[in-house]
Amino acid sequence: MSQGSIFGKQFCVSTFGESHGKAVGVVVDGCPAGLPLSEEIIQPYLDRRRPGQSAYTTGRQEGDAVEILSGVFEGKTTGTPIGLLIRNKDAKSKDYSNIRDIFRPGHADYGFFQKFGFRDYRGGGRSSGRETIGRVAAGAIAEEILKSLDIEVLAYAKAIGPVECTSFDEHEIFENPLYMPDEEAAEVAEGFLKKCMERRDSAGGIIECRIRGLLPGIGEPVFDKLDARLAYGMLSIGAVKGFELGAGFEAAQLQGSENNDSFLMRDGEVAKRSNHSGGVLGGMSDGGELVFRVAVKPTPSIGREQDTVDIYGNETEIEIKGRHDPVIVPRAVVVVETMAALVLVDGILSDLSSRMQYVHDYWKKKENQSVPQI
Amino acid sequence: MSQGSIFGKQFCVSTFGESHGKAVGVVVDGCPAGLPLSEEIIQPYLDRRRPGQSAYTTGRQEGDAVEILSGVFEGKTTGTPIGLLIRNKDAKSKDYSNIRDIFRPGHADYGFFQKFGFRDYRGGGRSSGRETIGRVAAGAIAEEILKSLDIEVLAYAKAIGPVECTSFDEHEIFENPLYMPDEEAAEVAEGFLKKCMERRDSAGGIIECRIRGLLPGIGEPVFDKLDARLAYGMLSIGAVKGFELGAGFEAAQLQGSENNDSFLMRDGEVAKRSNHSGGVLGGMSDGGELVFRVAVKPTPSIGREQDTVDIYGNETEIEIKGRHDPVIVPRAVVVVETMAALVLVDGILSDLSSRMQYVHDYWKKKENQSVPQI
Amino acid sequence: MSQGSIFGKQFCVSTFGESHGKAVGVVVDGCPAGLPLSEEIIQPYLDRRRPGQSAYTTGRQEGDAVEILSGVFEGKTTGTPIGLLIRNKDAKSKDYSNIRDIFRPGHADYGFFQKFGFRDYRGGGRSSGRETIGRVAAGAIAEEILKSLDIEVLAYAKAIGPVECTSFDEHEIFENPLYMPDEEAAEVAEGFLKKCMERRDSAGGIIECRIRGLLPGIGEPVFDKLDARLAYGMLSIGAVKGFELGAGFEAAQLQGSENNDSFLMRDGEVAKRSNHSGGVLGGMSDGGELVFRVAVKPTPSIGREQDTVDIYGNETEIEIKGRHDPVIVPRAVVVVETMAALVLVDGILSDLSSRMQYVHDYWKKKENQSVPQI
Amino acid sequence: MSQGSIFGKQFCVSTFGESHGKAVGVVVDGCPAGLPLSEEIIQPYLDRRRPGQSAYTTGRQEGDAVEILSGVFEGKTTGTPIGLLIRNKDAKSKDYSNIRDIFRPGHADYGFFQKFGFRDYRGGGRSSGRETIGRVAAGAIAEEILKSLDIEVLAYAKAIGPVECTSFDEHEIFENPLYMPDEEAAEVAEGFLKKCMERRDSAGGIIECRIRGLLPGIGEPVFDKLDARLAYGMLSIGAVKGFELGAGFEAAQLQGSENNDSFLMRDGEVAKRSNHSGGVLGGMSDGGELVFRVAVKPTPSIGREQDTVDIYGNETEIEIKGRHDPVIVPRAVVVVETMAALVLVDGILSDLSSRMQYVHDYWKKKENQSVPQI
Repeated sequence: MSQGSIFGKQFCVSTFGESHGKAVGVVVDGCPAGLPLSEEIIQPYLDRRRPGQSAYTTGRQEGDAVEILSGVFEGKTTGTPIGLLIRNKDAKSKDYSNIRDIFRPGHADYGFFQKFGFRDYRGGGRSSGRETIGRVAAGAIAEEILKSLDIEVLAYAKAIGPVECTSFDEHEIFENPLYMPDEEAAEVAEGFLKKCMERRDSAGGIIECRIRGLLPGIGEPVFDKLDARLAYGMLSIGAVKGFELGAGFEAAQLQGSENNDSFLMRDGEVAKRSNHSGGVLGGMSDGGELVFRVAVKPTPSIGREQDTVDIYGNETEIEIKGRHDPVIVPRAVVVVETMAALVLVDGILSDLSSRMQYVHDYWKKKENQSVPQI
Repeated sequence: MSQGSIFGKQFCVSTFGESHGKAVGVVVDGCPAGLPLSEEIIQPYLDRRRPGQSAYTTGRQEGDAVEILSGVFEGKTTGTPIGLLIRNKDAKSKDYSNIRDIFRPGHADYGFFQKFGFRDYRGGGRSSGRETIGRVAAGAIAEEILKSLDIEVLAYAKAIGPVECTSFDEHEIFENPLYMPDEEAAEVAEGFLKKCMERRDSAGGIIECRIRGLLPGIGEPVFDKLDARLAYGMLSIGAVKGFELGAGFEAAQLQGSENNDSFLMRDGEVAKRSNHSGGVLGGMSDGGELVFRVAVKPTPSIGREQDTVDIYGNETEIEIKGRHDPVIVPRAVVVVETMAALVLVDGILSDLSSRMQYVHDYWKKKENQSVPQI
Repeated sequence: MSQGSIFGKQFCVSTFGESHGKAVGVVVDGCPAGLPLSEEIIQPYLDRRRPGQSAYTTGRQEGDAVEILSGVFEGKTTGTPIGLLIRNKDAKSKDYSNIRDIFRPGHADYGFFQKFGFRDYRGGGRSSGRETIGRVAAGAIAEEILKSLDIEVLAYAKAIGPVECTSFDEHEIFENPLYMPDEEAAEVAEGFLKKCMERRDSAGGIIECRIRGLLPGIGEPVFDKLDARLAYGMLSIGAVKGFELGAGFEAAQLQGSENNDSFLMRDGEVAKRSNHSGGVLGGMSDGGELVFRVAVKPTPSIGREQDTVDIYGNETEIEIKGRHDPVIVPRAVVVVETMAALVLVDGILSDLSSRMQYVHDYWKKKENQSVPQI
Repeated sequence: MSQGSIFGKQFCVSTFGESHGKAVGVVVDGCPAGLPLSEEIIQPYLDRRRPGQSAYTTGRQEGDAVEILSGVFEGKTTGTPIGLLIRNKDAKSKDYSNIRDIFRPGHADYGFFQKFGFRDYRGGGRSSGRETIGRVAAGAIAEEILKSLDIEVLAYAKAIGPVECTSFDEHEIFENPLYMPDEEAAEVAEGFLKKCMERRDSAGGIIECRIRGLLPGIGEPVFDKLDARLAYGMLSIGAVKGFELGAGFEAAQLQGSENNDSFLMRDGEVAKRSNHSGGVLGGMSDGGELVFRVAVKPTPSIGREQDTVDIYGNETEIEIKGRHDPVIVPRAVVVVETMAALVLVDGILSDLSSRMQYVHDYWKKKENQSVPQI
């Protein structure tokens, strides 16, 4: 179906735009009416993924100012499609002319060429990281919905290259340019990145995301498991090479008696003694904190000389110039966060029709409102 | 959309059935006409996931004989929906009466109850591993399509609990009951599982899957990335807690210069010097072998006593009786394999309309066939 | 997407089965949990479309007994897929051997052959009227949901061939074999059909459907207009050649001042002075009775000799033997009714997420239920 | 799913924008790569639906200039989403202030208010005829694809109010402002419309559409019948109240022997003696000309005084000021045409995977291209 630029079933997000085209943007179809929304609400999310915020991100200064084209009236969503547009201002296409006929290692170039029969050599085109702007803008709306339900989505860098956080201080996350919750680790990681840059090389890392306030029973029991949709969303982010939930890959080595989370009663509510499940059991939220991690590969664009081939089948070498982050993890943090929000909102909206009781309650409410009111 | 029991966009798989209901089955809508198909072709796939094949799988002997209800005429698919039915023969519901009101740790019970408002206590109901029969049956058809394109999907147990394969002998996979490609590791793993069973405990493991023969350019550049769809498919399998592709989580620690796979020419074709990508770049196949791994948690059903709560909010204890595998990894191997086949076929069928050139070629062919032929 | 045998977005219906294969059936994914359901509830709907009930329907006596395979537990839906199976008992394939290589005029044969590359000559295969059994079975569930919301769907024969009803007596509908609400017209139509049969010819007709109790605001403003989805559902029924709503084609000749329905207040509620709209304005229900009509063409299978061609490109003649209704309108009445129910339920379930207020109310309810209750 | 502003399964069209918001537009996902495309190609389609072209259309002069935001590179589609934007330049919101709290008869106002809980009184908002701009822009692309396959879509006004065409001169269609294929009827209709305007009243009409060059076998046998999708598309156009194909409603009165189209051989190809089917049998194209008609109701916005109610439940009267066409049929002609193109392209792209033979041919072609070429 389609060329795969539409995400979501109830909260449908249709993104468009290339790195060096005129604009990137998104249409959100399925946002309930009555959500307070404005450009001021969306912009901060985009600012968090914006380049040029530190030495470790590209110097491109675009602003990425979002314009709401439709779907909002008198400060609230109308229930109709929300069109969001972000013009590309600072696109220096000439930077890319030297890679016009060459497949960059670690990039989408070769597969794209084989798929569509041409090269959009302008900075990766649709496969550029700029594509994520559409998701972040749409995900910002999703996150606003979650906030109104007291659900919090928090993402941060768990590791940069080999430097892993060993402590967790939530307030620290927004205090350092790497979005790490461990001040000390952040400092070590900064040193590590400096050396990367000196070597004209790049690094990857791990992003962790925690979701709090999610009631149990969100997600579907078979294909549309909540964790399956999250995995789908996360792997759909460029450069992500792995996803794990709760104990994740470590669970493979545990015994059932270790890995199972015992249920108990706490303050009159069902709780779990541990959280190896990561908050999802059988595809549905289990009431615990939802915790997942994604592995981000090192930025494929590096200044060092690499062997490759061109579109004519000749072997050649390439040194990638232009502006490139030595690590994309810090900027990807908000992408992971908003992508998670998109998946969660979709799961929640789907759950509204899970019981006849909900359907009847809704219908009764509608009946009572059918008389025009003052 | 729906309650999430439909998978796929072009090759649509709609599964149904509970563990202890009358039957499980699947409807496949979107299989091209003209594929040779019979019950004899599908059955071997189901036999591979069948329980009762070794000491490490449950003693339940069901046969799980598949019946083709529709969509096949004179030995070939007709292009119309293929209905597949597998009757539940050996469902001993009484085994489960003692867990009727209790939420089993590590299971879907609690979330299911909170979602739908009731307990289908009969062996997990829709959340049982028996649900996978529908996917395997549908995936068998998908795998037949792949075979006809010379694409091979091969899955096996990479690790059982802490016992990991250190060598790879493809022929060994089907020689041991654990589907491990390393004879020695298989023996150690068997010893490990015996001890697990003695302790009335369970184990997890890692399943690896390799796909050969996939041409470059399959998968979509943004949301419907090939690896995103694979991650979705894999996490939709119960008990899977993680997915990684190529270097996976390890890639997070590598430098770009290490992780990037250089392109080179080999026998007149574009090739890669390494395969850290795992065969997918930017969401599209890159022509290399596609390699991914999934983490399977230890079977949550264990005989040991566990703390839990019941549906009335009382704390209690549970010892799970009935037939349960100490490890589901061996039986899940064919589930991973067929689920991968479903994702791949969907990706390939979607690619048919990726270029106007393909559309024109198809139309010309149709024009020439528009005269009835002898 | 798929080969088009899946209908619905929230209430997803996946049908399968050919006229002379083993069985026909359907999987319903997306039915809310908690709806009372049993085979006894569904069967009467199927009985209404069953052949052999009068001289004007085929003599084939199949029973068409439905079996619920899944999705119902202790007399209620579970929220998981409902599999419904109806075995084909009385399939006399030999009746069709004489048309094996011949395209029947007015039938799907030629297009089917050109599409899929083969002939399923057994009574039309997937293109047979028996395909509607799946929809009726699924639509029966949808209609039960509507009934629980006090929404009534009523279909009947408005005209048989040139014989049109001139009066409307709701009770009469189920009193005559043609499901006409006008006793006198029914008698004239019976006479007309007898002559048709004597001439080995066939007739068509008009089916009208009225829906009462639908609150305003169901349906979506743009593509998924309620009337657009109804038109889609209706034209998807074989032999239907037209759809109109309210004043329908006549509206094309009216002036705006005639066609507009004035609003007024009646018993404290918004009402309309007339109903030219047919109950839908701008794609959304307007609170009035929803009224639409479909045109059914005469049964294409007739005993009279017809000119045609065979699959080898030879001109030939055909006399269709076997059992065929001289008119399918009476049996199609329940198909129209249940198909309308499918569209309506889909529209209602979609509406649950139309406002943030509904989402918040649902979430609050969920919060309160999150403590297990006695 | 969603709020219903996404159309199509393979060629997915996601529209957005309100009458008096900032812009209207559309994202097309699923257009094959390699189609020549530019703003110059799309603009003429938009110009045909543009108001202000004659006395019978509103005086609003907007230009409606389309801007391609993405998905086109070096004059050809890239296979990635095509974003199209049309700014609203001439939106005089103040014109609508007098209807701020009043439900206009014949409009979506009341249903919209009941659905979403508010009034977008600015000219109908999302329910305005301006919404069709997105479809026409997307449909223009679809029509370009059809042209490249030698498929022609031709729509025209068959009737304006009670004035029906009695002759068919294809060249005449673009010679008169009403797009009627009958010069004489056009003149009579112009006179009729003048009187309508004097009475501050409005008229409807019938639009007919013919599609030539469609090969047999397009469309799916069950739900996604070609005519069902066309009916869906047509009824999704505001003001359309009916759809019929071929003989349409008249077929209900014919006998099978009259209505069936005999097959014969003509120039070595299968042909039909008549075309009561309208080119679709059993949901699939039958090789004949595809002919359908839609009924367009009279414009609901009229200057004459009408009874109605306001949002507070008071009865009141309304005279609609502002610019309104006395008839929308001429401007809707291109909407019908492009909407048909959207349905056809979707049906054709879906058909590419109808046979294993096509899949194998495509794969072979891909194999041969897998060596980079000069």
